[in-house]
Amino acid sequence: MISKRDFTAAHERIAAFVHRTPILTCRSISDQVGAVLVFKCENFQRIGAFKIRGAVNAVLQLSAEERGRGVATHSSGNHAQALALAARELDTRATIVMPRNSVTVKKEAVRGYGATIVDCEPTFTDREATLRRVLGETGAVFVPPFNDWHVITGQGTAAKELIEDEPGLDVILAPVGGGGLLSGTALAAHFFSPETRVIGVEPEEADDAYRSLQTGEIQPLEKTDTIADGLRTSLGDKTFAVIREHVSEIITVSETAIVDAMRQVWERMKIVIEPSAAVAVAGAIRAADRLRGQRVGVILSGGNVDLDKLPFGR
Amino acid sequence: MISKRDFTAAHERIAAFVHRTPILTCRSISDQVGAVLVFKCENFQRIGAFKIRGAVNAVLQLSAEERGRGVATHSSGNHAQALALAARELDTRATIVMPRNSVTVKKEAVRGYGATIVDCEPTFTDREATLRRVLGETGAVFVPPFNDWHVITGQGTAAKELIEDEPGLDVILAPVGGGGLLSGTALAAHFFSPETRVIGVEPEEADDAYRSLQTGEIQPLEKTDTIADGLRTSLGDKTFAVIREHVSEIITVSETAIVDAMRQVWERMKIVIEPSAAVAVAGAIRAADRLRGQRVGVILSGGNVDLDKLPFGR
Repeated sequence: MISKRDFTAAHERIAAFVHRTPILTCRSISDQVGAVLVFKCENFQRIGAFKIRGAVNAVLQLSAEERGRGVATHSSGNHAQALALAARELDTRATIVMPRNSVTVKKEAVRGYGATIVDCEPTFTDREATLRRVLGETGAVFVPPFNDWHVITGQGTAAKELIEDEPGLDVILAPVGGGGLLSGTALAAHFFSPETRVIGVEPEEADDAYRSLQTGEIQPLEKTDTIADGLRTSLGDKTFAVIREHVSEIITVSETAIVDAMRQVWERMKIVIEPSAAVAVAGAIRAADRLRGQRVGVILSGGNVDLDKLPFGR
Repeated sequence: MISKRDFTAAHERIAAFVHRTPILTCRSISDQVGAVLVFKCENFQRIGAFKIRGAVNAVLQLSAEERGRGVATHSSGNHAQALALAARELDTRATIVMPRNSVTVKKEAVRGYGATIVDCEPTFTDREATLRRVLGETGAVFVPPFNDWHVITGQGTAAKELIEDEPGLDVILAPVGGGGLLSGTALAAHFFSPETRVIGVEPEEADDAYRSLQTGEIQPLEKTDTIADGLRTSLGDKTFAVIREHVSEIITVSETAIVDAMRQVWERMKIVIEPSAAVAVAGAIRAADRLRGQRVGVILSGGNVDLDKLPFGR
């Protein structure tokens, strides 16, 4: 597991490689919830999402010999960009297994960072099989997208900054897919602001974390086409263990609520967030009855959208 | 005309009613231009655009008797919202003449601020006729959208802040429609950073300012359907006089270049800007040969877009 000291060390380790992102507010969304909302803007992070934090933290802890072999992972999007950029910055090579149907701008960005893309079918089985083949052929070190202590700790540094900049939050909301961000957030709150509750939010269409917490066992995610493309994964054993211990509840939100929250953030705050980030905003709106009068942190996890495929009407 | 002291007084007068907006940078757009670009983010301004500055400055200079009569204007968009909000904040009433085809979100915002909307046909003639009727019926004071010294000075406070935060800029680019922002920017540079050149940028499809500067006479704008809906107006005598004296050149940009610049800002900077703001970015890209190696301020004038009618493909 991870100690408070590990967390502080990770934050210092990655500081030169990531932005300390700003915190914004929005009166109209706060009024709607009846709470004071503060938004941690990881959409302004390098690669456009928090994932660079975990990737850099993981790569920085490889030995020289390991870095010499290169790194590899499978990812449909932001972790792919994150590992590609981390590898470039830290003088190693990245090979990324990506489903054929990944968002175009994300693929282009991965290539732009100098990584090699290996296509796979958009199924978890083929992702894993293709990655195993890549690891065998290249000897590269696998950097998992979420189920890894270094990755979890790195992702949690976003919440650590939020807690430092906005002390005394009653609640922090974060979206949950594989659980890297949520478990990192929960550990950051546990170590640095133990009175702060942490709530996970996920699409109804991908409610595996909700069901896992209910049943006490990791529930697989069946095929989903939620618009929140960053959240189409199930928990891992490490992220689940942390979430089970430190997350007070999981809220689920409908696809309509996700798009509505995304629209509100774009229109009112004038910032671009991706659907997965909107999930946390939708969660705050949905949980308004329990958040009334409180100070609420919301982690806007990323801003990578395909502008040619927006969910708004014409 | 306006003195340096007027400018400083205006800035102090409006300070409590407007945001001091942040300045952002973007490495990829800077690299593309080969210059150091700094963006003054008036898309984060109240009402989502710089126009609140001029409207507040104008309304604050009305006598108690005049404020008692209310204010009125014609505007297709941001000035309408600006005057509506200024009126609400300063305890007077606003009546806004708006073309029937105005962007929906802008009309809703105007109503939301408590102003009365009077519809007109989308022609300049009918806008003016309808406004005259409104002024006659209500006795309200006309607050012009741009051709007014108080409005011009108010708009120029954005550039004054930019100059204060980023001293020593070689150039500032601003979009030009009626010329309120551009003439205010030019005066701010003249008073507070006289070595800084000011360049106006406008759509090729609405190149009246370019032609006016060429010919030395205000050239009317024929019917245009440029996507930059904030720039579909001709210069006024006051804005033209300032632009003629203090603006070094006008650059025109194509509709394609506007959309491309808008896409780059959304994708890379993760902020929402409207097409009129993208015009200035497109100007910087177009003028790259003359800006190379320089420090360039770009005024992002606003972020009010109709998300249901975006110019991106699917």
